[in-house]
Amino acid sequence: MFSCFWLIFLVQSSVAKVIQLKWEVEYKHWSPDCIESVVMAINGTFPGPTIEATAGDTVNITLTNHLHTEGVVIHWHGITQKGTPWADGTASISQCAINAGETFVYSFTVEKAGTFFYHGHYGMQRSAGLYGSLIVHEAEPHRQPFKYDGEFNLLLSDWWHQNVHRQEVDLSGVPLVFIGEPQSLLINGKGQYNCSIAAHFDESKNVCNFTEKEQCKPEILQVKPNKKYRIRLASTTALASLNFMIQGHKLEVVEADGNYVKPFLVDDLDIYSGESYSVLLNTNQGPPSGNYWISIGIRGRKPGKPPTPPALAILNYYPMTPVSKHPSSAPPVHPVWDNYTHSKLFSNSIKALTGPKSYLNYKPPPLKQDRRIVLLNTQNYINNYTKWTINNISLTLPSTPYLGAIKYGIDNAFTQQSPPDHYNSPNYNINYPPPRDTNAIHSNAVYKLPSNKVIDVVLQNANMLTEGHSEIHPWHLHGHDFWVLGYGEGKFSDANETLFNTVDPPLRNTVVVYPYGWTALRFEADNPGVWAFHCHIEPHLHMGMGVIFAEAVEEIKKMKVNKEALVCGLTGKMFMNSHRD
Amino acid sequence: MFSCFWLIFLVQSSVAKVIQLKWEVEYKHWSPDCIESVVMAINGTFPGPTIEATAGDTVNITLTNHLHTEGVVIHWHGITQKGTPWADGTASISQCAINAGETFVYSFTVEKAGTFFYHGHYGMQRSAGLYGSLIVHEAEPHRQPFKYDGEFNLLLSDWWHQNVHRQEVDLSGVPLVFIGEPQSLLINGKGQYNCSIAAHFDESKNVCNFTEKEQCKPEILQVKPNKKYRIRLASTTALASLNFMIQGHKLEVVEADGNYVKPFLVDDLDIYSGESYSVLLNTNQGPPSGNYWISIGIRGRKPGKPPTPPALAILNYYPMTPVSKHPSSAPPVHPVWDNYTHSKLFSNSIKALTGPKSYLNYKPPPLKQDRRIVLLNTQNYINNYTKWTINNISLTLPSTPYLGAIKYGIDNAFTQQSPPDHYNSPNYNINYPPPRDTNAIHSNAVYKLPSNKVIDVVLQNANMLTEGHSEIHPWHLHGHDFWVLGYGEGKFSDANETLFNTVDPPLRNTVVVYPYGWTALRFEADNPGVWAFHCHIEPHLHMGMGVIFAEAVEEIKKMKVNKEALVCGLTGKMFMNSHRD
Repeated sequence: MFSCFWLIFLVQSSVAKVIQLKWEVEYKHWSPDCIESVVMAINGTFPGPTIEATAGDTVNITLTNHLHTEGVVIHWHGITQKGTPWADGTASISQCAINAGETFVYSFTVEKAGTFFYHGHYGMQRSAGLYGSLIVHEAEPHRQPFKYDGEFNLLLSDWWHQNVHRQEVDLSGVPLVFIGEPQSLLINGKGQYNCSIAAHFDESKNVCNFTEKEQCKPEILQVKPNKKYRIRLASTTALASLNFMIQGHKLEVVEADGNYVKPFLVDDLDIYSGESYSVLLNTNQGPPSGNYWISIGIRGRKPGKPPTPPALAILNYYPMTPVSKHPSSAPPVHPVWDNYTHSKLFSNSIKALTGPKSYLNYKPPPLKQDRRIVLLNTQNYINNYTKWTINNISLTLPSTPYLGAIKYGIDNAFTQQSPPDHYNSPNYNINYPPPRDTNAIHSNAVYKLPSNKVIDVVLQNANMLTEGHSEIHPWHLHGHDFWVLGYGEGKFSDANETLFNTVDPPLRNTVVVYPYGWTALRFEADNPGVWAFHCHIEPHLHMGMGVIFAEAVEEIKKMKVNKEALVCGLTGKMFMNSHRD
Repeated sequence: MFSCFWLIFLVQSSVAKVIQLKWEVEYKHWSPDCIESVVMAINGTFPGPTIEATAGDTVNITLTNHLHTEGVVIHWHGITQKGTPWADGTASISQCAINAGETFVYSFTVEKAGTFFYHGHYGMQRSAGLYGSLIVHEAEPHRQPFKYDGEFNLLLSDWWHQNVHRQEVDLSGVPLVFIGEPQSLLINGKGQYNCSIAAHFDESKNVCNFTEKEQCKPEILQVKPNKKYRIRLASTTALASLNFMIQGHKLEVVEADGNYVKPFLVDDLDIYSGESYSVLLNTNQGPPSGNYWISIGIRGRKPGKPPTPPALAILNYYPMTPVSKHPSSAPPVHPVWDNYTHSKLFSNSIKALTGPKSYLNYKPPPLKQDRRIVLLNTQNYINNYTKWTINNISLTLPSTPYLGAIKYGIDNAFTQQSPPDHYNSPNYNINYPPPRDTNAIHSNAVYKLPSNKVIDVVLQNANMLTEGHSEIHPWHLHGHDFWVLGYGEGKFSDANETLFNTVDPPLRNTVVVYPYGWTALRFEADNPGVWAFHCHIEPHLHMGMGVIFAEAVEEIKKMKVNKEALVCGLTGKMFMNSHRD
C-alpha cells in the first residue's frame, strides 16, 4: 500500500505541476499609447504577467489588492473551473470582491491546452488595464495537431484617455454619456496615439521617437525565412471588434478559444472581444528578407472623429533585415468597418477539427436539446436610464455572490423567480427600436439549469434604441465551451434548426451575434456552479447585458467551496452569526 | 417598580429622540465650481444632506453603497462615539469599509450641542466630495450662552478638477506628483472657476451668468438690520487653510469645535481643515441696507499659478436691498498667506468659556499628565517614496480593522510593538530637512493608552524634505475633545510646560501646529475604542501622517460592538471559521 501511494504520486508529478504565483494589483502611471495615464498593473507591469502552464497543471495565484478603495477579482477567461466554481473570478457571482488590502488565493486546474487570458471582472476594471495572457501548452505525450518552429503571443486591447471611473459614471447616468470610440488600439499593451511608426507613408502623422525604455514602443516579431510560426491572438478589448492582418502574408487558422479547428487560410481575420485564435505564419511567402506591417483595425463600429488609428507592429525577417528599415509600402488596409459579409464568411469558415488527428477527442454535440432559451438583445429605457436588456431584463448583480447564496440556501439574496426562456411577444419586430411600453426591468434573477441537460441558447439580435442601428455583440460563457450551431439573418424560429451544423460545429467560449441576426449554441450543463453569460463589451455588461446560469443547484449545495470567497453580504452575515463572542 | 420604569421612560423620551435616516451614496455628475465634474453624492445631492439633531438624540443612518467597485465609510467628525467606537466611520480602524452594493447602519448618540460635520474616511473620498453638515442643537432646558435671531450654516471646502483616483495614484508614486493647489474654494459646495460674481470690480474676470438651476450659484445670506445671527462655519477642505471674513462686519467668536469659547471680536478668522466655529454677526454695524461680500481665501500655502481665487457669497440686507445690487466695493482682501503672526494671534485668543454661564460645566484639565507623547512631524523617503512620518513612522492601515483585532485578540492583524513616545534623536534639528539615514519605516503600530490616564501630546513641527519649508498641519483626534494647552516656537522641551494654559484652555477636536513650532494638548483616556489622530489634510493622511490610539484595550475586549462592522480581514475569517457547513 505504501509503494502504491508513491507510484500514484510519481505518475501525477510527472504530468502535472503546481504553479505558484504571487501577484500584487495596484494603480501605476503608464503610457500605453505614449500618453501618460494610469493603469491597473500586476506586479508593476502592464499588461499583467503572462502565465505559461501545461495542461493538467494547477495554478495557484496569491493575489493581494493594493488599490486604494476598490475591491478586485480576476477571471480566468476560457478556463472551465470544473470543481472550482468559486475560483472563476466574477464579483457578485462566484465570489466577493477582494477588499483593498486583502489577499485571496485562486487555485484551479488548467485542463486543456490553448490560448487563454485573464482579466478583471468587477465594475469596468478590465477597461482600466487589468488583463494578461494565459497560455496552456499540451502535456506530453499529447501534441497540438500542427507543427511550428516558434511562437508569438499578441494580446489585443483598446484604450481610452478618459479614466474608467468617469466612464462608469457617464454610462450610469441620465442621460447616458457614451464612452465613444477608443483613442488607441494596443498590441501587448502598446500603441501610439500622438505619432505613427508608419508616418513616412502619411504626412499627416508625426514620426515616433522612442527612447529605449518607452512603454509604447511597438512589438517586433523576428522571424527567419522558411519557418512556421504560431501566432497566438487574444482580444480583451472593452469595445472594439478587431481585424488582424500581416502585410503580404496569408495566415492559417488552427485554434479558436483553446479548441483546434480545421485549418484554413485567410488574408485577415476578425477577432471579437473575448475570443482567441492561433494562426500559423509560413515565412515562405515572399523574399527571405524585409519588414512587414502587422496591423489591427476596428470592425463593426462606425469610425469616430478622429477615427481610431490601427495599431501597428513589425514582422522582421532576421538576420537579413535591420529592424530600423522601413517596410517597403504603407500599412495594409483593413476591410471596411461594415462589411459584415466578410466577417460572416470568416465566422462560417470555422469548423471543429475532428478525427484521429485531434488529441482532444472532439465530440460532436448531442443532436437534440432538452431546453432552448432564446435571448432577445435590445436596449430599453428603465426609469429613464438607458440599459441593455435580455428578454426585457437588465442584469444587476446582488451584493451577496450567487454561489454562496445558492450553496447555503439564502433565498433572499436574489430574486428567486426565473427570467423568461423567450421574449414574450411573438410579434416583436427586431427591425425596429423596442416599443416604450416593454416594461423592461432590472433584475438579478438566474436561469436554473438542471444537471446534465442539453441547453440551446439562441442569441437574437435586434434594433437598439436608435432607429436603423443594431450592433455586434460577442457573448462569452463562463464555465463552458459550447458548440456554435450556426448563424442566421433576421428572426430565429425553431424551423431554423435545419440550418444547424451538428457534424463539426466548433467549440468556443465566445461567439458573436451579428446585427439583426441570430446565433445558436449548445452546451451540456455538466459543470455545477454559477456562470455568467454576457456580452463581452465592457460598457454593455456594465449596462446590464448578461444573464446568469445557476447550473446543477443541488450539486452546488453539496460541493466543497473555498469559503474565503464568500465573506461578504448575507453569507458574511451568516458566518458572523455563527460566531459567539 | 412598574411605575418607576415608566417614569424613566417618559423622562428620557421627552428629551431625546431617534433620528432615522436612509442614505444612498453614489457618484453623480455635478458642477461644484461651474465646471462639470463627478462628486460623491448622498441621496443625489452635494454636499450631502445636513443632519439636524438635538443633544442626546440617537442618530441611525442606514447607508447603502451604490459606488461601482469602491467601499465607503462615513466619519462623524467631532462626535465622541462613547460606547459606540464601531460607529466612528474610519476604514481599517473602527470598521470594514462597506462594500459596493451593501448596507450598513451607523447608530450613535450626539451627546452635546455644536457645529459638526461628517465626511468619508477611506482613501481620499472626502476630497471626492463625500461630506455634509451635522448640527446639534441644545436640548431643553439647556441653551447656548448667547442669543441670536437666526442662524446660517456654511460648510467650506476646496475642489480640484483632477479626479481623486488619479490624485491618489499621483501621491503614491515615485516620484511623488503633488495634487497642487485647488482650482476652487467652495461655500456649501458652490464656487465659480471660470467666472466671478465680483467681475465688475476686476476686468480680468468673466461675469457669471447663472440659470436658476445652476449648481454653482453662490449662497446668499439674507439678514435684517439690528439683529444677531449665528453663522456656523466648518472646514472640510482637503488641503487649504482658510480665512473667513464678511466685508464691513466684525464677527464675535463664540464656539469652536462644539465647545463654547469666551466671546471675542475679530475682523476675520482662520479656520483649518477639521475645525468648526460659530460666530455671531451683529447687523447693527452700518447702514441698514446693502450687499456685502462674504469671502474665504487661502492661508499658509504659497498661492499656485494661477492662484486659487477666494470663494464668495453675499450678505444681503433685506427687504431694503435687492439681491441683484452689486456690493459697493471690491471683495475684501484676506491677510497675506504667510502672515503667521496674524494666525497665531487668533489661535491664542481662543479661551474656554468658564463659569456659571456655561451649561457644559467646562472642567479645566488635570494639572499633570500621566504620560507625554511627543510627535515629530516630518517628511521622509521610504524606499524612494515620499511619505509623511511621525517619529519616523509613516502610518499604513491594516486590512483587519484594529477595533476587531483588539476585541478578539487577533495579534497578527497588526504590529504589536508600540511606536515611540519621542523622536529618538535628542539632537534632531527641526530647522533642517531630515537626514537621509533616519531609517523611517511604514508601520501600523498603535499607541496603547491605559484606561483613564491623562495623556499629553506635543505636536512638534519641523522642516520637511525641501529646505526652508515647514507646513501647517491641523491635527484631528477621534473619540475626544482635548484641551489645547498652548502653542510655541521652535523645539519643545519639558521646560515649556510653564507656558501651558491650565486655567481655561479651550476644548477642541482639531488643532493646528504652525511651521517650525509645537502645539501641546491634553486629554483623558476615558473612551474605550481605537481612535485615529491625524493631520486632517487629506493628501498628508494618505501619505502616512497619523497615529492610532488604542484606548482601554481591556475594556474593548469586554465591550459589545456591532459585529457587522467587522466582517472582513482576519475578523471575517474568524467568523467564517466559526461556521460549520
